[in-house]
Amino acid sequence: MTTARWVLDRCTDLLTFSARPDALERAYLTREHAAANTAVAAWMRDAGLDTETDAAGNLWGRRAPGGAPERPGGAPERPGGGAGDRAPALVLGSHLDTVPDAGAYDGMLGVTLAIAVAERLRDTALPFALEVAGFSDEEGARFGKALLGSCAASGQWDPAWWEQRDADGIRLDEAFRAFGLDPARVGDAARRPEELVGYLEAHIEQGPRLEAVDQPLGYVTTVAGARRFVLTVTGEARHAGGTPYDRRRDALVAASMIVVEIERLGRESAGCLATVGEIAVEPGAVNVIPGRAELTLDLRATTDAERDDLWERIEGTARSIATVRGVRFDATETHRAPSTTCAPWLTEAVVEGITATAPPVDPGRAASDGVPGLWSPAGHDAMAMAAVTDVAMLFVRCHDGISHHPAEDVREDDVALALDALEAAVLAVARRHASREENE
Amino acid sequence: MTTARWVLDRCTDLLTFSARPDALERAYLTREHAAANTAVAAWMRDAGLDTETDAAGNLWGRRAPGGAPERPGGAPERPGGGAGDRAPALVLGSHLDTVPDAGAYDGMLGVTLAIAVAERLRDTALPFALEVAGFSDEEGARFGKALLGSCAASGQWDPAWWEQRDADGIRLDEAFRAFGLDPARVGDAARRPEELVGYLEAHIEQGPRLEAVDQPLGYVTTVAGARRFVLTVTGEARHAGGTPYDRRRDALVAASMIVVEIERLGRESAGCLATVGEIAVEPGAVNVIPGRAELTLDLRATTDAERDDLWERIEGTARSIATVRGVRFDATETHRAPSTTCAPWLTEAVVEGITATAPPVDPGRAASDGVPGLWSPAGHDAMAMAAVTDVAMLFVRCHDGISHHPAEDVREDDVALALDALEAAVLAVARRHASREENE
Repeated sequence: MTTARWVLDRCTDLLTFSARPDALERAYLTREHAAANTAVAAWMRDAGLDTETDAAGNLWGRRAPGGAPERPGGAPERPGGGAGDRAPALVLGSHLDTVPDAGAYDGMLGVTLAIAVAERLRDTALPFALEVAGFSDEEGARFGKALLGSCAASGQWDPAWWEQRDADGIRLDEAFRAFGLDPARVGDAARRPEELVGYLEAHIEQGPRLEAVDQPLGYVTTVAGARRFVLTVTGEARHAGGTPYDRRRDALVAASMIVVEIERLGRESAGCLATVGEIAVEPGAVNVIPGRAELTLDLRATTDAERDDLWERIEGTARSIATVRGVRFDATETHRAPSTTCAPWLTEAVVEGITATAPPVDPGRAASDGVPGLWSPAGHDAMAMAAVTDVAMLFVRCHDGISHHPAEDVREDDVALALDALEAAVLAVARRHASREENE
Repeated sequence: MTTARWVLDRCTDLLTFSARPDALERAYLTREHAAANTAVAAWMRDAGLDTETDAAGNLWGRRAPGGAPERPGGAPERPGGGAGDRAPALVLGSHLDTVPDAGAYDGMLGVTLAIAVAERLRDTALPFALEVAGFSDEEGARFGKALLGSCAASGQWDPAWWEQRDADGIRLDEAFRAFGLDPARVGDAARRPEELVGYLEAHIEQGPRLEAVDQPLGYVTTVAGARRFVLTVTGEARHAGGTPYDRRRDALVAASMIVVEIERLGRESAGCLATVGEIAVEPGAVNVIPGRAELTLDLRATTDAERDDLWERIEGTARSIATVRGVRFDATETHRAPSTTCAPWLTEAVVEGITATAPPVDPGRAASDGVPGLWSPAGHDAMAMAAVTDVAMLFVRCHDGISHHPAEDVREDDVALALDALEAAVLAVARRHASREENE
């Protein structure tokens, strides 16, 4: 069996740790989360890693610079947040939680690839410790706040989050205790910058761009930070029969004009995405003109400046429409995250890794010329980890750009290339790390 | 106290027969429906009418052609669906049920005005019996089917309606029995054409047109028959971050374009109203492109032909948008009622009644020239009664066109004019009735 097959089979294994028999749904601090951690920890140990679940439910595997520990016996390397005089680590990883009705690869592919690379490098001495992270919450499906696991691991836990409740009314701190974790100790999960060399994440692209240029792999330039808004249009609810057009202040017609303009403005701004995902009107009856419409807006762009500029144009256009239509427009920002720029030195190592899998056909051309660099409109654990260390990302082509859906798919030959690239990238980081140490 | 004040005070009295202490809500076959019937029946008897609740919960009052019956003693006139050798009746009326959070006048003003007119004509001999109808269900708020009361009274009851359930799951036939009615006898409520001279309904305009032309009263030309549709736009739900614009099939953007076009097409068609009152999208998450949007459409127009022509243009435009946007468009018709044309001879009597209240200032001009004739975009009991007799309607100016809302309001001096006009209209019908009988 190829290693790529092993990686894909482990993703298939993980489908069984689900809240539902017919679909994949694995949320933070659930029984299936615990079961997945147990299974993945066993694979980590098989790959020569010592394992530990940290104070926020993240799963870590670790080996020392010299290679896999002799087991049994000898002092095991305690990974994940342990104190002590230890070598800094390069972390490979992604997340093990999923959205409801998820695909098999978003997150899990990055963890299983990392374990397979650790296995391949088991006996290779490295100038740093090697760790694999299986983050416990990236999707935020259960408590409405994304990146809980990697925020804990990067020391960004906000005590206000304890008040968040899931759909059954269970508070986050109650869920911690039910999982066997002590909320008071969540700070123990925080990694410090001096413990880390960098964070390298492989992930399916969740978009169709690699497929469009017929490339199996790409590197990430920036991970977009989304801004989210609730937009409200307030007109006047009146009888649909009794109210002629010149007396209407129809909130839905004005909101519809705004939705159309949001798409137009988003399309004309290269590297920007603006999406209205939800809409509701009041009172919402077949024979009553809507008096109020509420929409959500999700904005992403290559850079925060472009994103913020797009928002200004959307807001200005929406206000103009509201004035012309005699309705009121209000916007409330509900979420804002800065975009993350991947570290150039670590990204160069990723590009070198990708290049190693595909030597240039034209000898006069550098291999790296052909490697696609993509911005990531979707968020990733790398965004949180960037608070404590340099980050870089490897994107793997996926079928038709589909993600967050059972139809999520990757090709085995692409996974084989991703394995080679990630392994080569770790070795490239090792070379760069040595020269960076010398320069300090 | 003026009679107009009496009429308004009775509308205020009826506010107390409500399912809620803080708002008016009186649905079909409820305890408050029974209580309202009891109170209104007493007012009818005070006006010299014999009363009866029919087999569908409608309240009827009746007097013989000669005037009010001598009471007690003598054989009372049995109103409402009773058999026997009786004089045909001119029916004045409207409905006593309301929407949730209703105003005080929609329906009730027509009933209380009719009772006050019967009182005024108590001792006046007429060439027909005079009846007052308080219909039990016009709004359809409880069982989702409008005009149940007047459909029963006009012999149009559909046995399929027995299966309709209210929000608590109570079937219509169960509600009949709980109200003390026998579903098997609903046919007894049906009036036959030979029993009726005509049906005359006074109602608040539920629109701002009389106010706009500074006129207290108007007559109705046609009552529009609405068509209602559920429109569905099917695109593809995808990750808002991972899906570039050229890969999107956003159901909400296409639906929004359709909403904007529906308004544009409605506005450019004089005498037409098109309203989208409800919209919902799936899956409905902030970071997911909507894959499906469902809208309701309510269409009304002066004539059925104009309404149907507008629908054809809306459907064509929606299909074009769907094609351009790569989504699917489906439409399901959920309701269709033909429009009702008021009978010219009965309408002439209404115009004569209105004219009697406002003699022409310019002696060279016919008084009737200044009387506004309006189409009614809203449905009325007159639509159902038109199946068994000629109908006509008198509209009373209301504040700012507001209806189906606690802010519904009418002026006391307008009610005084409406009383005079309705009384004069009954006398005008009497004159016309006599000459019509002669011509036959």
